[in-house]
Amino acid sequence: MPKLNETHDPQRRSWHAAANDAGTDFPIQNLPFGVFRRRGSDEVPRGGVAIGDAILDLASVHRAKLFEGKAAEAVAAASDTTLNRLMGLGAAHWSALRLAVSRLLAAGGADEAERRRLGQPCLVWMQDAELLLGAAVGDYTDFYASIFHATNVGKQLRPDNPLLPNYKWIPIGYHGRGSSLVVSGTKIRRPSGQLKLPDQDAPMVAPCRMLDYELEMGFFVGPGNGLGTTLTLDEAADRIFGFCLLNDWSARDIQAWEYAPLGPFLAKSLGTTLSPWIVTAEALAPFRAPSATRPAGDPQPLPYLTSARDAAEGGLDVILEAYLRTAQMQAENAAPHRLSRGNAQTVYWTVAQMLTHHASNGCNLNPGDLLGTGTISGPDKESWGSLIELTFRGRERIELPTGETRGFIEDGDEILFRARCERPGHVAIGFGECRGIVTPTA
Amino acid sequence: MPKLNETHDPQRRSWHAAANDAGTDFPIQNLPFGVFRRRGSDEVPRGGVAIGDAILDLASVHRAKLFEGKAAEAVAAASDTTLNRLMGLGAAHWSALRLAVSRLLAAGGADEAERRRLGQPCLVWMQDAELLLGAAVGDYTDFYASIFHATNVGKQLRPDNPLLPNYKWIPIGYHGRGSSLVVSGTKIRRPSGQLKLPDQDAPMVAPCRMLDYELEMGFFVGPGNGLGTTLTLDEAADRIFGFCLLNDWSARDIQAWEYAPLGPFLAKSLGTTLSPWIVTAEALAPFRAPSATRPAGDPQPLPYLTSARDAAEGGLDVILEAYLRTAQMQAENAAPHRLSRGNAQTVYWTVAQMLTHHASNGCNLNPGDLLGTGTISGPDKESWGSLIELTFRGRERIELPTGETRGFIEDGDEILFRARCERPGHVAIGFGECRGIVTPTA
Repeated sequence: MPKLNETHDPQRRSWHAAANDAGTDFPIQNLPFGVFRRRGSDEVPRGGVAIGDAILDLASVHRAKLFEGKAAEAVAAASDTTLNRLMGLGAAHWSALRLAVSRLLAAGGADEAERRRLGQPCLVWMQDAELLLGAAVGDYTDFYASIFHATNVGKQLRPDNPLLPNYKWIPIGYHGRGSSLVVSGTKIRRPSGQLKLPDQDAPMVAPCRMLDYELEMGFFVGPGNGLGTTLTLDEAADRIFGFCLLNDWSARDIQAWEYAPLGPFLAKSLGTTLSPWIVTAEALAPFRAPSATRPAGDPQPLPYLTSARDAAEGGLDVILEAYLRTAQMQAENAAPHRLSRGNAQTVYWTVAQMLTHHASNGCNLNPGDLLGTGTISGPDKESWGSLIELTFRGRERIELPTGETRGFIEDGDEILFRARCERPGHVAIGFGECRGIVTPTA
Repeated sequence: MPKLNETHDPQRRSWHAAANDAGTDFPIQNLPFGVFRRRGSDEVPRGGVAIGDAILDLASVHRAKLFEGKAAEAVAAASDTTLNRLMGLGAAHWSALRLAVSRLLAAGGADEAERRRLGQPCLVWMQDAELLLGAAVGDYTDFYASIFHATNVGKQLRPDNPLLPNYKWIPIGYHGRGSSLVVSGTKIRRPSGQLKLPDQDAPMVAPCRMLDYELEMGFFVGPGNGLGTTLTLDEAADRIFGFCLLNDWSARDIQAWEYAPLGPFLAKSLGTTLSPWIVTAEALAPFRAPSATRPAGDPQPLPYLTSARDAAEGGLDVILEAYLRTAQMQAENAAPHRLSRGNAQTVYWTVAQMLTHHASNGCNLNPGDLLGTGTISGPDKESWGSLIELTFRGRERIELPTGETRGFIEDGDEILFRARCERPGHVAIGFGECRGIVTPTA
């Protein structure tokens, strides 16, 4: 397991009481970063750290000169309108800032009252805040790292031979669209596009009929590499700033007609939703896991994708859930219906393997670049991370508690993702929500 | 033909004499935009306009308050370190700035001496300048719009059925990598990557053995569209700021092993070279052409990809040339060897069709976004825009005047692109050079 320090101490509590609630995603052991401003204000956005039901305003902390040394440098960078500069500073600065924030917010000790006196004016209620994207993403790359997802999708095209020959050798990925990344809560408009129906000779233009979600994790690059240089696996691991939830909304019918031979394009660039809180790599340290076990007979990764450290702790023990709330459920104030529950530990390629492979041709990555894992599906149907898998391309509709059924997403449906890390001996942490409601084609 | 004005007047000459040389790419009828600073200086980069062998420094023009109204607003925007803000202003501003620059630089008239007195201090010798990328490209998309290229490449995989069924319906494109866009002259390092040799069971990691260029045009988006909104074909045409040359360096062996099912990835993100001068859509007005003739039997484009204007002037009559200069040729100071000569008019989809299709799902495009046409190949071998076509995947090596031969690019080889527009009754304009030397794998 990666090295733990006092910020991971399960005994540590915060003087901000809501951070100590059993169910909170944001105890003092988490301390995820985001960018926010007060809702409805014209304030300049700045970095913040989630703590219980509040946000520690890092620009306020910076102005009040509460930190010193690397933590002061990091909190200055985090006062920008995006976290890109903080991401570029690297792990020593991130760690110093996390430690300083943890100490500022910690309960106990002789100086608790003083720390509370300094820290409390820097808190903003989360319910008063508008959350924005944490980074200006220069480039976004999406991978295809879940072998169960690749197998499920491949089976629909090639029942006898679902995985292509390169799958177990290459962390398959493709360049995604950066401009259409949006923060949780942004409405997603159903795209229109060219569809080719099986019984028609020619395509037509119509609203997408097979709109889907993809349950993914995203991760942000910290210090990058120059064009023409590469990263070892352990260097890559140290350059990952943190993680979020990612919904790679997908228009399956548009994709089926457009994707050969250059891959998905308009099927994906209709919008990609990110959860606003970035859970740092350091916060996830207690929840690392060995990389996924390769079944007997699978090739071992090539040397550039192999390290003892990655094998021991490359995996992420994160429970991932997808929920659906139809317009009727929203009207009835009913709880969302859970569609799936899986774990990121089942992913075939580790995040460090994805990043190392990405840079292996000399492609330069920059602070704030975003990588997605691809849909995370596990071995059992309960854990499949998209409707195309759960409904077998719409053929087996899901029955909902309201009596409604779904093959794909309908207008007015809201898709929500949640994620938690839970391990004995550690305080559970969560990712907050990643949500979006689908609105009709314009 | 699009509307012409005094800036296109073939009689107009400049008081800067080098702009009147017969062979120059940059007569007063061209006036392409770029970003520069004095070589070896720590000057702040700013916009400039090429005129003969010099650059009109737009920040100097702005400071000297030489322009009024929209031209003054536009030249202020063009004084930024990138042209993104100028691009976002839209066609009325671009046109006002072009007219003001043309008048400032024009010879003749009673006030020529006064205009020269004002303008000359704003000129910088091009040989003293370092040219940079003209825009901070938020997103880069590459198309596959030459049917001859798609057919040539398709034949190597599917001799009897080279074009996929969607080709004549969809301007096929994919999301490219923005971070690895570089300006002409930047060295390109040969990538290493996973290669799967035909006689091997497993892939290996090795330097690319099939490094290729792709001769393309790039074009920059001006005012964009919001997420969830679309563009008509004529709106799209009016939002294209200008054009450059683009070399989509391609590692064919890496691509062959990685590309299924999500498209090219590391085969492309090793570097993409852009020529520094952006020839505006307005400068190209005299060189527009009808969109490419569809052979009898080809489907007509769907309505969203059809307009009378696009049919009449969607094409680009631009002569495109690719050259190779080996290390031996450089040592002998020999002229580059021409590999191909083609014309952008042969491209199957127009640039407005590419942009309209891109936005047709509601994908948002932003000022400074870059679109590439894909390799431009014509019907005859002389006009094929990549080595994989010219050498039939390396099987028929090209013989060079030095006695050397080439299947693909070797270390030390320089690839150069040039482009010119030549029509009777008009002054010819050019694009400058797009060049890059390949260096060995690190």
